[in-house]
Amino acid sequence: MYQERIDRVLKNMEEMGLEQMIVTDPPSIFYLTGKWILPNERLLALYLNKNGNHKLFVNRLFTVDGDAGMEKVWFSDTDPGCQIIAGYTDHDNPLGIDKKMAARFLLELMELGAGSSFKNASECVDGARRIKDEDEKEKMILASKLNDAAMLQFRGLIKEGVTELEVAAGMNAIYKELGTEGPSFGPLVSFGANAAIGHHKPDSTVLKEGDCVLFDVGCKKNSYCSDMTRTFFYKSVSEKGREVYEIVKKANLAAQAAMKPGMRFCDIDKVARNIITEAGYGPYFTHRLGHCIGIEVHDAGDVSAVNQDIVKEGMIFSCEPGIYLPGELGVRIEDLMLITADGAVSLNSDSKELEIIQ
Amino acid sequence: MYQERIDRVLKNMEEMGLEQMIVTDPPSIFYLTGKWILPNERLLALYLNKNGNHKLFVNRLFTVDGDAGMEKVWFSDTDPGCQIIAGYTDHDNPLGIDKKMAARFLLELMELGAGSSFKNASECVDGARRIKDEDEKEKMILASKLNDAAMLQFRGLIKEGVTELEVAAGMNAIYKELGTEGPSFGPLVSFGANAAIGHHKPDSTVLKEGDCVLFDVGCKKNSYCSDMTRTFFYKSVSEKGREVYEIVKKANLAAQAAMKPGMRFCDIDKVARNIITEAGYGPYFTHRLGHCIGIEVHDAGDVSAVNQDIVKEGMIFSCEPGIYLPGELGVRIEDLMLITADGAVSLNSDSKELEIIQ
Repeated sequence: MYQERIDRVLKNMEEMGLEQMIVTDPPSIFYLTGKWILPNERLLALYLNKNGNHKLFVNRLFTVDGDAGMEKVWFSDTDPGCQIIAGYTDHDNPLGIDKKMAARFLLELMELGAGSSFKNASECVDGARRIKDEDEKEKMILASKLNDAAMLQFRGLIKEGVTELEVAAGMNAIYKELGTEGPSFGPLVSFGANAAIGHHKPDSTVLKEGDCVLFDVGCKKNSYCSDMTRTFFYKSVSEKGREVYEIVKKANLAAQAAMKPGMRFCDIDKVARNIITEAGYGPYFTHRLGHCIGIEVHDAGDVSAVNQDIVKEGMIFSCEPGIYLPGELGVRIEDLMLITADGAVSLNSDSKELEIIQ
Repeated sequence: MYQERIDRVLKNMEEMGLEQMIVTDPPSIFYLTGKWILPNERLLALYLNKNGNHKLFVNRLFTVDGDAGMEKVWFSDTDPGCQIIAGYTDHDNPLGIDKKMAARFLLELMELGAGSSFKNASECVDGARRIKDEDEKEKMILASKLNDAAMLQFRGLIKEGVTELEVAAGMNAIYKELGTEGPSFGPLVSFGANAAIGHHKPDSTVLKEGDCVLFDVGCKKNSYCSDMTRTFFYKSVSEKGREVYEIVKKANLAAQAAMKPGMRFCDIDKVARNIITEAGYGPYFTHRLGHCIGIEVHDAGDVSAVNQDIVKEGMIFSCEPGIYLPGELGVRIEDLMLITADGAVSLNSDSKELEIIQ
């Protein structure tokens, strides 16, 4: 499985005219070797070469259980890590670089002349990661099933006098009980006007009648992420709330119905955005429609107005239109979508009908 | 306060021959502006210029409450962030770069010719952060006081049949009850032979009589970190365990007694290492003696055999000698040390006498 993934990366490198590259992003190294190593500020690097003499450079402080499918080169805190790597690279050939490599390592590799030039080659790995293999699809489906199960229970946390922080604590407990590896982010819950604030973190805001309650939540299972948003209302819903909710739901469903291989990401964004714009709320849909997801909640690639890349079978990304009325409310409805041979299926089955929680 | 910090960075830049630099690391931006912004994969940059026309480049998705002490330049996901920054930099002058800047931004700034050359200039900020001002000292002292209080309670989690994971859950709860912002890492607890494994994560290992119990723990308070290690024994201690414990304690105390401004970091490491080596356990002290700490658990700078930098008043770093006998046990004793005008004081007062918990 890992050899197949590496072969896909090497093929992408060939198309980019690269014979060698360095991957430093831990999730990408996990994808290509099955080993999770979190180096914090230390150097961790996977060197890929078209000739197959791949190497994994690891600090002795970290444990790598079993075979990584390639030779490991160990070094200590007192060793010159970049020099060791530069001892293996082909100095007369361009060197592909992971987009997340820290500048201190890149600047040092440049000084050492580790390659004849340096190129952001992350797309070679990101492109491979973007199309899920069967093993990954199974894991993504399971993570979203658990997220659906969690969302069902989250409704029970909505009650008189509760604060966002209390609900967030309850959400963490539910994810734990469900046997997940914990939230894949946040998790986020916003009451009323807080739901209109981008990236609002749960605080001591107390729930009150008529509030929208926006849950943007995900969990990890087998190192793969889920991500879903549902927006409920507490005890009652205003006319404006109902109107906004139905527009967002329509945009969510229309975009999902339109998805199929061969179209561009920007065209999917447009389907949802047009519906919201035609309803007069265009300026209040302030973000992209979605993002790719897998080992990371935000895998590389997004569903936005500027992404003209082509959608392909096996991709998984979020579909999350929203309308945010400052000082008033916010509604977002999000599912994860898996692109199939001729369309797309949602990994989430939690109801999207407007719900008023009593 | 923030202006003073920026002035110290500008002075360091002048010494490095730099008139401009870009800071991207969120903790450094927090240090210089008081604003915590976590951009994930998005661009966040603080541009510092000796002429004082600093700019904070922020994606509109993030909230920056109040004044950041400088002009903010907002941009959206669909805007070319690096081009916008390059519109403000002096292309005919070297540009300092944060050591953590992601390669994708650095390679793009290089293509745009945003500076005449690019230099890792993090030490300008790191050097400022390494010497704590009064506000920071107070916060560090409080975070360690809370950590001492937590360690007292952690002893109560050690009981018949408990697993590392159960103890870890109890530790998280205690940190919460104490009003901290949660653990600054891990937290880590290792029983018996697990304590000899570097970076061992709590698992389902069950406590048994004679085990050492190693707690490596810290919390955050007011965005500043604490970090401390204590090693206890459960019900009984072997002769080997007692011997190792007393050597580690001696190394811990001797290094602390030796610390003063003007000496080199490597000389402090040597004091502890000599004691352990002379006792015949040199090969089993497998890591550096300590690391700087502040807004991050691992601030830049360490107490290691290769760091010849000079120790200065106001620095805070860990003193954590250890001996690890594979398959058997591990002992580490760690305090945070604040360098004073003529010596050093420990921020931790938790007992370091050998304790056998019944």
